[in-house]
Amino acid sequence: MITPRPAILPEPTLRRLPWYLAYVETLREAHEEYVSSTRISKDLDLDSSCIAKDLSFLSLKGKTRIGYEVEALEQALTEFLGFRVSHKAYLFGAGSLGAALMQDSGLSNYGLDIVAAFDTDPRKEGIVYGGIRVSHPSSLSRVMQENPATIAILAVPATKAQEVADTAIREGVRAIWNFTPCRVRVPEGVVMANTSIYAHLALIFNRLAEMPANPGKGGER
Amino acid sequence: MITPRPAILPEPTLRRLPWYLAYVETLREAHEEYVSSTRISKDLDLDSSCIAKDLSFLSLKGKTRIGYEVEALEQALTEFLGFRVSHKAYLFGAGSLGAALMQDSGLSNYGLDIVAAFDTDPRKEGIVYGGIRVSHPSSLSRVMQENPATIAILAVPATKAQEVADTAIREGVRAIWNFTPCRVRVPEGVVMANTSIYAHLALIFNRLAEMPANPGKGGER
Repeated sequence: MITPRPAILPEPTLRRLPWYLAYVETLREAHEEYVSSTRISKDLDLDSSCIAKDLSFLSLKGKTRIGYEVEALEQALTEFLGFRVSHKAYLFGAGSLGAALMQDSGLSNYGLDIVAAFDTDPRKEGIVYGGIRVSHPSSLSRVMQENPATIAILAVPATKAQEVADTAIREGVRAIWNFTPCRVRVPEGVVMANTSIYAHLALIFNRLAEMPANPGKGGER
Repeated sequence: MITPRPAILPEPTLRRLPWYLAYVETLREAHEEYVSSTRISKDLDLDSSCIAKDLSFLSLKGKTRIGYEVEALEQALTEFLGFRVSHKAYLFGAGSLGAALMQDSGLSNYGLDIVAAFDTDPRKEGIVYGGIRVSHPSSLSRVMQENPATIAILAVPATKAQEVADTAIREGVRAIWNFTPCRVRVPEGVVMANTSIYAHLALIFNRLAEMPANPGKGGER
């Protein structure tokens, strides 16, 4: 089944689609067969017009009064989100976060295959995490020829983030997934995604500090 | 030094402040003494009016023509972001991601102290990661009395996320840091932050798939 894809999805929709997916997975595990927009709206606390818009990107129609077939919705979301296709990635920085990403089987279930890992620390060379061997970055060009990847995951120290991104892009990766607290700049045409763990910490701390004065104000919901 | 804090910081500013911090850390390591807004603007590719606004939240003034003192700016940012105060947290779910968070010394450098970890898997009970022992969730009430924490980190399977959040909030935590792909709902007055690893993957895959048609369009920058 090929799901037609629209030009470019709005970011808020892309942020919500994985929520629907996690939700229908839960329903499937509970052996539920159908789910209505009304119920999704109630369970996820989202406006039903927002749900209708988000799901309209999928080539899947719900049935009047019954709603969506749970398994079909799960399949459509998984395919639409690109989780069923393998996307090869290199990991840079085999510290605690990098090693955890290499060992996280969740990522490969969601379509991300880390095929090589690099670290400048000679003591890390040759160590294997989750079946992936850590190499010195000097072998990057060779690895890129033998087993090319599209995505570079940055889990290096902040001071090295830009330099590593530049090198990876020069070698041909087309997307940077940045786990460092740095602002990393990329040329036009390279995809950039930030998973800013420390920015989220700052958000939590700030909102907690403000809470007594603003009891109804949470952070990002 | 106590930095006065405004009512509630806008989220975009909170997202950018850690960028400035990572940036001035790099400057300090390179033994730079001063940095001008113009240079920050150039190096981080941010509008100078945006930088002026963001840094106006700090009680720190730059000097005309010279700019900010690097060390003073680093200190002001660290304190302002709450990274110098210890915030206690419990971690739920000692799988690969949870274990990595427990071992990430970066978090405690940034003010987050994981003081206890919980997992329902009896084989994980008693295992120590990064100096923290994994316990069964049945001990949560007792731990909360002995060593109360404000933040619950969710690294559990998606199907358990809401239930674990509910329990933690009932026991008294005031903030949820959600690493699961689920939409987790919290009552008014509880801080919620999502670090949506899979949503970022979906963003990367979607933008990559669209790239040939939209060469100038990256993802979130």
